This record gives sequence, C-alpha cells and structure tokens, in this order.
Amino acid sequence: MTFHGVFPYLVSPTDELGGVNMPVLSDLVEHLIANGVHGLAPLGSTGEFAYLSDEQRLDVVRTTIAANRGRVPVVAGVASTSIRHAVQQTEAMVEAGADGILAILEAYFPIKDDGVEAYFTAIAHAAKGRPVVLYTNPQFQRSDLSLPVIERLSRIDNIRYIKDASTNTGRLLSIIERTKGRLDVFAASAHIPACVLMIGGLGWMAGPACIVPRQSIALYEAAKAGDWARAMDLQRPLWRVNEIFAKYSIAACIKAALELQGFAVGNPIPPQEPLSDDARAEIAQVLRRVGAL
Amino acid sequence: MTFHGVFPYLVSPTDELGGVNMPVLSDLVEHLIANGVHGLAPLGSTGEFAYLSDEQRLDVVRTTIAANRGRVPVVAGVASTSIRHAVQQTEAMVEAGADGILAILEAYFPIKDDGVEAYFTAIAHAAKGRPVVLYTNPQFQRSDLSLPVIERLSRIDNIRYIKDASTNTGRLLSIIERTKGRLDVFAASAHIPACVLMIGGLGWMAGPACIVPRQSIALYEAAKAGDWARAMDLQRPLWRVNEIFAKYSIAACIKAALELQGFAVGNPIPPQEPLSDDARAEIAQVLRRVGAL
Amino acid sequence: MTFHGVFPYLVSPTDELGGVNMPVLSDLVEHLIANGVHGLAPLGSTGEFAYLSDEQRLDVVRTTIAANRGRVPVVAGVASTSIRHAVQQTEAMVEAGADGILAILEAYFPIKDDGVEAYFTAIAHAAKGRPVVLYTNPQFQRSDLSLPVIERLSRIDNIRYIKDASTNTGRLLSIIERTKGRLDVFAASAHIPACVLMIGGLGWMAGPACIVPRQSIALYEAAKAGDWARAMDLQRPLWRVNEIFAKYSIAACIKAALELQGFAVGNPIPPQEPLSDDARAEIAQVLRRVGAL
Amino acid sequence: MTFHGVFPYLVSPTDELGGVNMPVLSDLVEHLIANGVHGLAPLGSTGEFAYLSDEQRLDVVRTTIAANRGRVPVVAGVASTSIRHAVQQTEAMVEAGADGILAILEAYFPIKDDGVEAYFTAIAHAAKGRPVVLYTNPQFQRSDLSLPVIERLSRIDNIRYIKDASTNTGRLLSIIERTKGRLDVFAASAHIPACVLMIGGLGWMAGPACIVPRQSIALYEAAKAGDWARAMDLQRPLWRVNEIFAKYSIAACIKAALELQGFAVGNPIPPQEPLSDDARAEIAQVLRRVGAL
Repeated sequence: MTFHGVFPYLVSPTDELGGVNMPVLSDLVEHLIANGVHGLAPLGSTGEFAYLSDEQRLDVVRTTIAANRGRVPVVAGVASTSIRHAVQQTEAMVEAGADGILAILEAYFPIKDDGVEAYFTAIAHAAKGRPVVLYTNPQFQRSDLSLPVIERLSRIDNIRYIKDASTNTGRLLSIIERTKGRLDVFAASAHIPACVLMIGGLGWMAGPACIVPRQSIALYEAAKAGDWARAMDLQRPLWRVNEIFAKYSIAACIKAALELQGFAVGNPIPPQEPLSDDARAEIAQVLRRVGAL
Repeated sequence: MTFHGVFPYLVSPTDELGGVNMPVLSDLVEHLIANGVHGLAPLGSTGEFAYLSDEQRLDVVRTTIAANRGRVPVVAGVASTSIRHAVQQTEAMVEAGADGILAILEAYFPIKDDGVEAYFTAIAHAAKGRPVVLYTNPQFQRSDLSLPVIERLSRIDNIRYIKDASTNTGRLLSIIERTKGRLDVFAASAHIPACVLMIGGLGWMAGPACIVPRQSIALYEAAKAGDWARAMDLQRPLWRVNEIFAKYSIAACIKAALELQGFAVGNPIPPQEPLSDDARAEIAQVLRRVGAL
Repeated sequence: MTFHGVFPYLVSPTDELGGVNMPVLSDLVEHLIANGVHGLAPLGSTGEFAYLSDEQRLDVVRTTIAANRGRVPVVAGVASTSIRHAVQQTEAMVEAGADGILAILEAYFPIKDDGVEAYFTAIAHAAKGRPVVLYTNPQFQRSDLSLPVIERLSRIDNIRYIKDASTNTGRLLSIIERTKGRLDVFAASAHIPACVLMIGGLGWMAGPACIVPRQSIALYEAAKAGDWARAMDLQRPLWRVNEIFAKYSIAACIKAALELQGFAVGNPIPPQEPLSDDARAEIAQVLRRVGAL
Repeated sequence: MTFHGVFPYLVSPTDELGGVNMPVLSDLVEHLIANGVHGLAPLGSTGEFAYLSDEQRLDVVRTTIAANRGRVPVVAGVASTSIRHAVQQTEAMVEAGADGILAILEAYFPIKDDGVEAYFTAIAHAAKGRPVVLYTNPQFQRSDLSLPVIERLSRIDNIRYIKDASTNTGRLLSIIERTKGRLDVFAASAHIPACVLMIGGLGWMAGPACIVPRQSIALYEAAKAGDWARAMDLQRPLWRVNEIFAKYSIAACIKAALELQGFAVGNPIPPQEPLSDDARAEIAQVLRRVGAL
C-alpha cells in the first residue's frame, strides 16, 4: 500500500463530559471522503492525541476505520515517551485495522540519537509490514529527528514516509536528497505545499485539510500535473488558512472552523481554551475568502 | 499536616520487562527513612512519571505508602496535559492514602494563564483538603507558572507549597515575598539549598536526596539552627552532587548512583539510555568524596 | 534603479594585520562580474560587517565600487544598534557611491516595533532616494522584523526590497502577499532559491553565490523562464552548497571555499577560527561536485 | 589593587544630540562616592556601551576618572566582537587611567571555547597588570563563558574577578569551587546579593546600585559582618528594585529612576524608547518604599 496526496489530520470531537463524540467524527469522515481526500490521519497534533487516554485514542481510530469502510487509507497516530507503551499502541492500532502508523516520539528528558532510532525501529517492527510515517515536530515535542537518524531509519523496510512539521523547508530538500527511493516526504501546514511538491514531496498531512479539502486537492492536482503557475494561483489565497492555523492554537483553530462549517466537534480539551469571538470572526472571514464557508 | 525538610524524589525501580520492582522500592523507602528524611515524594521527574502508565504510577505510590507505614508524609506526583485525567489521578492517589499531591502540568499546546489556573485548581479540589505542592519545571515541561498565577493559586486553601525547578533563585524570593503566609517554598536540585533556606524556604524536594540523605539532612539542620557558616561548609562539597545531576540525564544519574550504593533499581526506562562507564565512574567519585559510597 | 537576480554577499578579505586586503577584493569583484552576477552586496553577514570598524567598512565598499566601475549595482550594508550611527554610515555609503543600502538592525536590549520602524525609516531617509533592502536574520541579530512592521515600512517610497534570512519559507509568502507591488523579496541561503522564485521572489542575496556564481545564475535563468523542472535539476546538487554553509560558520566557510578557488581572502577575523582540514576537505568535495573547483 | 563591595554600573548620560552629558555624569559620580560606593563601573550593559562609539566610550571613562579624583577604583568596560578592536579599547582605557577592565565578548557568529579564551587573554595582556573582570551575560551577548574556559582563564595572573549575569546562582557556586584563590565573584542584579555573599562572593556590580547606593552598602556591611538575619531583612525590600530592573529595559529603567532622583541623565539612546508614564510611576513607588525617593 502506498500513500500520496492530501491526508487531513482529523480532529477528535469530544462532548461535554470529555468523551469522544463518535457520530460527529463519522460525519466528518464521510464529508472529507466525499470531498476527495486521499487518506485520513487520526491522532496527529490536530487530533489532540496528547490529551486523550489510550482508550479514547482507540475509539477515535476505530470510529474512523468504521466510517471509512475501506475507501481510503487510514494512518493512525502512535505517540509515547516510552518504547513499551508505543509498541502496545501500535499493536492495538494494527489490530483495529489501521493501514499505516504515524509515529511520534514524545520526550520528557532529552533522548540521544540511538534512543530515537530504537524507538522508531520498535514501532516499525510492531506495525508488521504496514507503512510507517515518521513525524517530527520540534515546536511541540521537545525531541527531534536528526538527518543521520532519518537516514538510518529510512533503511528499515516499512519506514516509508516522513512528515516534518518544522518551518524549515530546506530541511525537507536535505531529507529528500539523502533518502531518495526509500523515504517520501509529506508537507506539514508550516510549509508551503506548492513548494514541497515542487522539490519532490508527494502530498501533505495537515490539520487545515480538514476545513479546506476541495481546495487542497485542487492545488495538489495542479502541482501533480506540473502546472506550477496554476498551483501558485491556488496556493496564494490558501496560504491565509495556514497563517491563521499558525496564529491560533492548532486544535482550537480547526475545531472552531469545523463548528462554523456545521460539524459539532466541540471545544478543545481543557485546560486548552476555546477561541475568542474575535478569533472565530477572523477564521470565518478567511474561510469565506477561499470559498469554504 | 505540614511539610518541611528533605523530601527525596524517589526513583521508580523497574525490572527487565518494564514492570515496577516493588521489593527494591520498599527497600529504598526503608533506607531513606532510616536515614532521617522528612518525607517521600514518589513520581517527580526523577521518578520517571512521564514514562509510566496510570497503573504503574499507582503501583509506585501504593508500594511507597505500604513501605512507609505512616512514618513520614508521602506526597504523590500527579501529572497530565488534561484536567480530566489529572483529577482522575488525584482521586486515585488520595484513595490510595497519599498525604499530599505534587501537582505537575504537562503541556503539548501552549496554555494561557486561565487554563493553568483551572488545572491546578481542579487538582486542589480533588485532593479533598490534602496539601498540594505546585511543581514547575520550565526545563522539561514546556509550560510555566507565572508569578500572577502563583499568587492567585496561593489563595486556594490547600495549595500550600511550591517547588520551582528553574535555576533562577531570585524567582524564589519573588514568590516568597508575594505569597507570604500562604505558600511555602521547597528548593529543587538546581538551586543551592543553603541559599533557599536563608531566603525563607523550608526544605527541598529533589532527586539527589535519594543518594545523599544524611548529608542533606545535616545541611538542613545547620540552616534551621541559623548556623550559616556550618551550613555552607556542608553545602560546598554537596554541590558536586547537584552538578553531576545537572550534567547527566536526571533519572539515569540517580538510578546509576543507587545501583552503586547497592539498590537494584535498574536502568532508566527505554528509549532513555543507561549512563556510560565513564559517567558511572565520575558519579562514584563524587559519592565517595561526600561519604556516600 | 531596480535590483533582481543573484547578488553575492562579498567576503571582506583581510591580511595578517587585520587590514582589508583591497587587491584581493578587487580580483573577486572582477571574477564575479565576469561570471555574470547581477549585483554585489558588500558588508552582509558573510562580509563580517560585525567585526569591522567604520573605516574598514568604508574601505570595503569603496574598493568594491572602484573595481565594479559601474557595471552592476552595489548594495552596501549598514548595521548598528543606534539610529545615529546607522544614519552616519548610510550617509557615508551614499557619498561613496553605493547604489543601494542593505539595512541591518543590531540589538543589545530588545527593541519594540516602534523603535524598529524608526530605525529603518531613518536609514531610508538618509539614503536619499536610493533603494533600501531590509535585512532580517533572527539567527544572529537578536531582533526581528514582525509582519506588521514590514507592512508599515513597505509604504516608505525607497524601502523596496527585503531579504529574510530565517529558514521559514512560508514567512516569505506571507510577506509577499502583504506587500505586493511595494516590496520585493530576495531569498537568503537558508531558503531553497527555486522555491522562493516560484512563490514570487526576484532573486537571492547570499554568501554562497560568491563561490558558485555561474551555477546560481543558471538556476535563476531557468526559474525566470518558468522552466521549473530544469530549475529543480540545477537546484538539487546546488543545495549541498547551502548545507555546508549552514553547517560551518558562514564567513569561515566562504573564505575557505574562495581560498580553495585561488582567492587569497585570508582567515575569518579573530577570535573566529579558521576551519579544520576536515571541513576544508568536505567543502572541496562539494565544490567539485557542482563543478566549482 | 583589589576590588570588593558595591560597584554601580554607571549610566551614560546623553543629551538631545546624542552626545555624552559630562556634567551630569560628574554629578552622579560625586553623589555615588558621597554615598559610600566601593568603586565605579562605567560601560557595563547599564552604561549602554553597545550604543556608543569608541570616542563616546572614552569620553565616559575619562569623565568618570576625572570626577572620581582617585577616591575609588574605576573599572572600565571593554566590549567587541574582534580581538583587534578589544585590544585597542583596552590600551586606550589603560592610558586614560582606568584601574581595571570589565571585559565583555560580543558575538555575531558563535565562537568556540578556544576563540573565547584567546579573546579574554588578549585583553588581559593589553591591560598591563591591571585587574580584569570577566563579564558574562547570556541574556544579551549571544556568547557564554563555559566552566572549563573560566577555569583556564583564572590561571592568567591579572584575570582576577568574574561577574556572571545569568540568573543561575548555582553556577556561581560552581565557579567559586573551581577557581578558589584565583578568581573572585561579583553578583549581578539577577542574583540575590545576600545569597552570593553567603556562598563566597565579594560584592556586586550592577545597575541598580546607581539608584540605591546606601541601601546596597548597608546590606553588604551586614553580610560582611556575618549578620545574615539582618542582611536578609535589608535584602527583602531591596529585591523589588531588582524585580523592576528585570521587568523593564535595563538602561531605560535606571535612567528613568535617576531622572526621578534629580539627575538629568536623559533618555536611553534611540531606537531604545523611554519608559511609559505607568512604568515611571511603578519605579517611583518602588524607590519610595526603600527610601530612595
């Protein structure tokens, strides 16, 4: 199985009591598939994995898989500070039917390169052949994947993709040049997707694709066709979505946008706070401009 | 119940399979009480709370309480990114018999002051009158308690102590001046205990007290008696212990030192790596110098 | 006068006594013009402005202007912590015949937005109509130009360009979208030039262009012609040059490379240290790969 | 010649045109000596060295020396990115009659330990036997003195003191323990002076001593007499002065406070901005509380 194109990081809708709101998640999955997304990525940063129990994480993935009914690949997030816990999560996700694993290392104490490598290697083995996407987000995770570690990990058979959520687009080119034929790159919301596709990326995994799926796919199609002028015409207005996503707290921003679009996904999980009315108005304006409201 | 003096942050001994090694933890508790510590603090940073499941955390606290047999206060760590999970942990710790709660906020997305206040307030309520120690560690937790939030939290009845693990000793004096009579300060290992006691602190909660309990208590007694010359004589050699603790990864360092002292506490939880032989030799030398080996 | 294309940041060759080596600088200017560069930028970071006295800075600019003989625009760096000193430098550069000013704000204490705006505005007035290029380098300068300040400065007539040396390519698109028609963007070495040109940039100002001028120009021409496939074919091997530039200290790296190419530009100014033999060998290898040695 | 006690970092009074206001500086020197300070330190951070030309720096030091009339030691600041420039400044300060040198390394590109050592060693030689105070301020200078470098520098005869402006008081104890008998430590305003004196420091060099000289000296005398209870009684209210100094931009804060005390020292050098009326009112209140207004 191979991945490419637009994979929205799904939010995790929650109700007043903090439980996962499964019907709303199912509706969102249906809506995104109807709009043409190439895959689904529950339990990324946007999915608030860091605020959910193991049981809630499984609920989110199971609901996503059930609603998807095999139409697109589902790449489930796995995140921990410990190898043992990451392996347990991976096994549970595979058993639940995930098509791939998005692997995230959380760190409390700093971890050296060998430890980082051991962590992702253990997840890859536990994934039993399913493709693994390395995820690195220096902004939130207090650990990072160095280029030499990425190069070593790229030699493991089922470690096949990387999603780098730094703002440093040059780093993506360095990764692409070093791991050609072994690792493919997905853009994050902090990169300009048109640029990442031009330097050799094959899609993006990002929260904003939840709220502008059609527009994201149009841009992807233009880039895939090599029509860079059109890709940039589509990219320019769409960049405003990434800007508000960077300005406001990520999960709060996407949840507020989805509420505006009619999905009752609820508030971000406390002590995160819902966005202010001013922020909601700004988001509504941006969505209107790109035809997403 | 009031707290003062030397509270070692207990390590969480683990076996090869990643389970908590209860007999070794019991031995360590017995040893520390025999050496005169004023209290016990399981599940601090040194206790690797960030690497343990909820079940393992409860095992560590229950074992500590059982081995303690009511002799000194046990202050149990509670740490989460979400209010819901923190409240669940607090309730479980209280039910298990903890005498107080060490409250830690983990953050993935940045949290604003109101959210920080809501988090600690919820823990205080769930602690049902037991004293709460605020814990702040800007080095590892990507969140911080601002002075205004600390001042507001100090007005909640059972929020009675704070342990600040920054290296900024001046900040402690600012806290003391602002919360006098409501909040008492414990030093962390990054501060010089003799200084913190002189400016009004009433003890310290720190990993190194696991490996130099007698020496820590002698320093505390000298300071309490106002004999600052003697306190500094004891402080000077002891500072080397804090230096190696800062140099090496915290849990790895204390576990290595305890192994040298004959406690089979095992290695830090993977992907953390055990210390090198050179590091162990350096730690052994420091322990010998202060008469702890 | 308008600027576009490839502007090498010139090194400042120095002799054993720390004086500017004017004959070598003249040779380098001749060589770069012969290779087709579109302009020259003395006194950027690569030019070690931060290590030169006012007299030495003027010597560098006068030598560059004399060697250039009016063939391409010369954009002279101006950098200070104080408005008074920056204005003095600007006046001297204009009097010496500079065609434009590269304006750099150094900060010791943090400066607020109004102060930043006042600083660049004062330089623009002192430049008497000559185009000003805003330069921002968060890595080295401990001050930064926020988007609102850039937007305000773009409304001053002769502030016409910006060179942003962050690694954040998305920020460039945000600047382009906000200042269209008033400010044009030059890429720095930390961005992928092909990407910056695709999103609307009109060239780059960077140290590496000193050592790979022909290759840089070929890439620029391909991009200008809209031949993005060819631009990326040229970009890919060239990215290695940016990688070594990021890996080693900037001035040390470019000076070492120019020495390898036969220009006796000397060592970086002490206490900066010359590169090791290993680093020189690595640089030589990269230069050979791209046909620059 | 040996240094100890309270050395105010002098502000550099400037007039509307940006020139040094010598009569006001002379008055300030007279006032501080009349209040018992043990020495004077022109051209520290508070003295805005980073905003003054070489000529202005010399003017400040010459005026200070002339007004002092040999009554207390004058330790002149020397600061540069380059060894050559630092040596020139040192020679000029020695020729002007400075009793010691406060040595500051500014960095643009990162400097390795050997370069840092070479820089301070060159200043020590140029000081021709006069005592050198190492100054390190990680907050503003983007370079730092590591413990091994400090240890090596302490073996140079006339490098005799260090002033560390981090907030990390524990680092001072590490320095004291490693350089005993060779290097003495002055506290900076970010440390609690009473603590630094207790762990073995011999005074402090700091901007706030400009505005609370009598109070600073009383605290120093109590600590010197070993009366730590009285030292802390004096320290507690005085800490508010350090807090406002940390809250507001340093030079702006001390200049505003001196203006309130009747010294026409002017505004901080542009583009630094003068403090707001609210900030001035807060400073006035703090000064009144400690009897300094």
